[in-house]
Amino acid sequence: MPTVSVIYFSGSGHTTKLAEAVHQGAASVAGVKTNLIAINGDDIVKGRYHNDDVFTKLDASDAIIFGSPTYMGGPAAQFKAFADATGGKWYAGEWRDKIAAGFSVSSSPSGDKFSTLQYFFTLAMQHGMIWVGLGEMPMQANGINRLGGFSGVMAQAGQEPTDVAPNATDKLTGELLGKRVAQYAVKLKR
Amino acid sequence: MPTVSVIYFSGSGHTTKLAEAVHQGAASVAGVKTNLIAINGDDIVKGRYHNDDVFTKLDASDAIIFGSPTYMGGPAAQFKAFADATGGKWYAGEWRDKIAAGFSVSSSPSGDKFSTLQYFFTLAMQHGMIWVGLGEMPMQANGINRLGGFSGVMAQAGQEPTDVAPNATDKLTGELLGKRVAQYAVKLKR
Amino acid sequence: MPTVSVIYFSGSGHTTKLAEAVHQGAASVAGVKTNLIAINGDDIVKGRYHNDDVFTKLDASDAIIFGSPTYMGGPAAQFKAFADATGGKWYAGEWRDKIAAGFSVSSSPSGDKFSTLQYFFTLAMQHGMIWVGLGEMPMQANGINRLGGFSGVMAQAGQEPTDVAPNATDKLTGELLGKRVAQYAVKLKR
Amino acid sequence: MPTVSVIYFSGSGHTTKLAEAVHQGAASVAGVKTNLIAINGDDIVKGRYHNDDVFTKLDASDAIIFGSPTYMGGPAAQFKAFADATGGKWYAGEWRDKIAAGFSVSSSPSGDKFSTLQYFFTLAMQHGMIWVGLGEMPMQANGINRLGGFSGVMAQAGQEPTDVAPNATDKLTGELLGKRVAQYAVKLKR
Repeated sequence: MPTVSVIYFSGSGHTTKLAEAVHQGAASVAGVKTNLIAINGDDIVKGRYHNDDVFTKLDASDAIIFGSPTYMGGPAAQFKAFADATGGKWYAGEWRDKIAAGFSVSSSPSGDKFSTLQYFFTLAMQHGMIWVGLGEMPMQANGINRLGGFSGVMAQAGQEPTDVAPNATDKLTGELLGKRVAQYAVKLKR
Repeated sequence: MPTVSVIYFSGSGHTTKLAEAVHQGAASVAGVKTNLIAINGDDIVKGRYHNDDVFTKLDASDAIIFGSPTYMGGPAAQFKAFADATGGKWYAGEWRDKIAAGFSVSSSPSGDKFSTLQYFFTLAMQHGMIWVGLGEMPMQANGINRLGGFSGVMAQAGQEPTDVAPNATDKLTGELLGKRVAQYAVKLKR
Repeated sequence: MPTVSVIYFSGSGHTTKLAEAVHQGAASVAGVKTNLIAINGDDIVKGRYHNDDVFTKLDASDAIIFGSPTYMGGPAAQFKAFADATGGKWYAGEWRDKIAAGFSVSSSPSGDKFSTLQYFFTLAMQHGMIWVGLGEMPMQANGINRLGGFSGVMAQAGQEPTDVAPNATDKLTGELLGKRVAQYAVKLKR
Repeated sequence: MPTVSVIYFSGSGHTTKLAEAVHQGAASVAGVKTNLIAINGDDIVKGRYHNDDVFTKLDASDAIIFGSPTYMGGPAAQFKAFADATGGKWYAGEWRDKIAAGFSVSSSPSGDKFSTLQYFFTLAMQHGMIWVGLGEMPMQANGINRLGGFSGVMAQAGQEPTDVAPNATDKLTGELLGKRVAQYAVKLKR
């Protein structure tokens, strides 16, 4: 059975909400096992991330979806610490041919989220992974992909409470990405 | 007297409106000469751009501001044809130390405009130019930088008439970039 | 039977050599139909590309591999004219779920080829395509991926004759990308 | 007197060597004060960087040059932790109009160093800083800019001892960037 994992960092809880939506989309696909994994600051010592349980789950995954707020024009340092900790996997080629995708949250509509998604893509390419983007037209009548992201999901949240932002359509956009990734995981596992 | 040139391509006229605003901002700075230059499709033969008058003006400029709609995730081919035609300037180092900046228009809030601005930056760096970004906080109460661009100006326009989009605050954002670039042109010419 | 198309622009012939290698790699996979398509400057009028035969072939392809030299920090204008001409396909979602990949040639080892590959990726994401990178470790003993590209293939060629540059290992790297894309085309067509 | 600061992270010592070269270039310009500041992992707790002395120095600088190895396709997490800690400066606009530049080291010629430089640029643009690139032609006879970077300095170092890599010409390239940035600091301070 194909496994899809969502691994993300959230500082204020907004990215957690989006991660849950992406995870829910993946879990809605029949015959798919899923993991929802938060990057915990406690696992980062002097800028280096260690957590064997997390890597055991990711190694056993067919698809890994990366998530982070956009902080100062890129992924949060906590996410980057996780990414740097994948160096051993890179060297051994262990994540080659896994599926990758990504999502990011920031307070303004554009707000350099594209830069964060580009980084996720670059990380995935270092690993020889296959990248699956959103695949939804922008600014649909129902609000899906209202911000016009393509490489992955972009959602907006500032100082609002986490039950308000990201809003329902941003979360629905996240759900669609999770579903799409899971469908590809099924297809490539056949 | 320092000279600031705005060079842009516009397909539907929306980028022309933004270019005019950027140009107006530059022209508002005392002691600055300005040029507003449209890239004309007629000057492109088999994908190659030729126009000696345009290059005479740009060669004599202290700052060059690049503008284009974002088409299929990057600058319009017409702009790229212009950029490719600067190869001789690159080889001779003729644009080294000029100031550069940029703006882009697309129909959705984010819509890969960041990719177009990144390209403008990369082009400027090939030439050894100095990059001046927007320098305005995002989502200001008056609408300035409402989309959250930093590397340059992002404006939104779809199928609306050109007197409606880009809207007044997007044009004001453009004006601020033009002004900022002109101020740097003055500073560096001293 | 899955079809893999290589579509590229070449100014000096070096990119043609790399395109042929990528195409050969794809054609080496059993049960795959291939096309090798050059973008012709004659098909570009005022910066706009038109060629119905080319689009008929691409529409019928399961995978499309993009190729261009890196000119002034990005894809050649001729390639961009082709990319802009895919706007109708984008609007209709016709290329959604096709596989995409890319390669670029420039005269220095790094030389902003990464920027061109990023653009190819951004274009593919606009279309909702699936991106397959190189998946080879850098600087292998046999010269494969000697420049350290991951998102796609990077090759080096300056003023040398086209039978000298790109060199044999850069072409072998291209071949491996073509093969990998074709294998994914087979897998996803099952 | 204008102040130029070099702030960098180094894991294996190779980036330290390049940082020293960049610093030396800046210090060679008459009438310029300089700082060479290493990011220390001990200052990072749970992924967050704190060091008031470092920020006191940077706040008082006219130019800040960013340096990091390229780890997994982007700046080291330790550098990103520093970058995230500048959020308060961003909010207050304290670094607006400072000069920015950057350098990166990785083991292969290209090796996604462009991605790290793009991130440095994006960070600088969030702050409203002015970006100064390398401004040197690629692959010069004396080895300057042998890798073909433009946005900043690219240097190569793998497992070699730090007295061997980065090599003399990569360090000379770094020196030229430091000098160029310092010259702009003088010009803009006049």
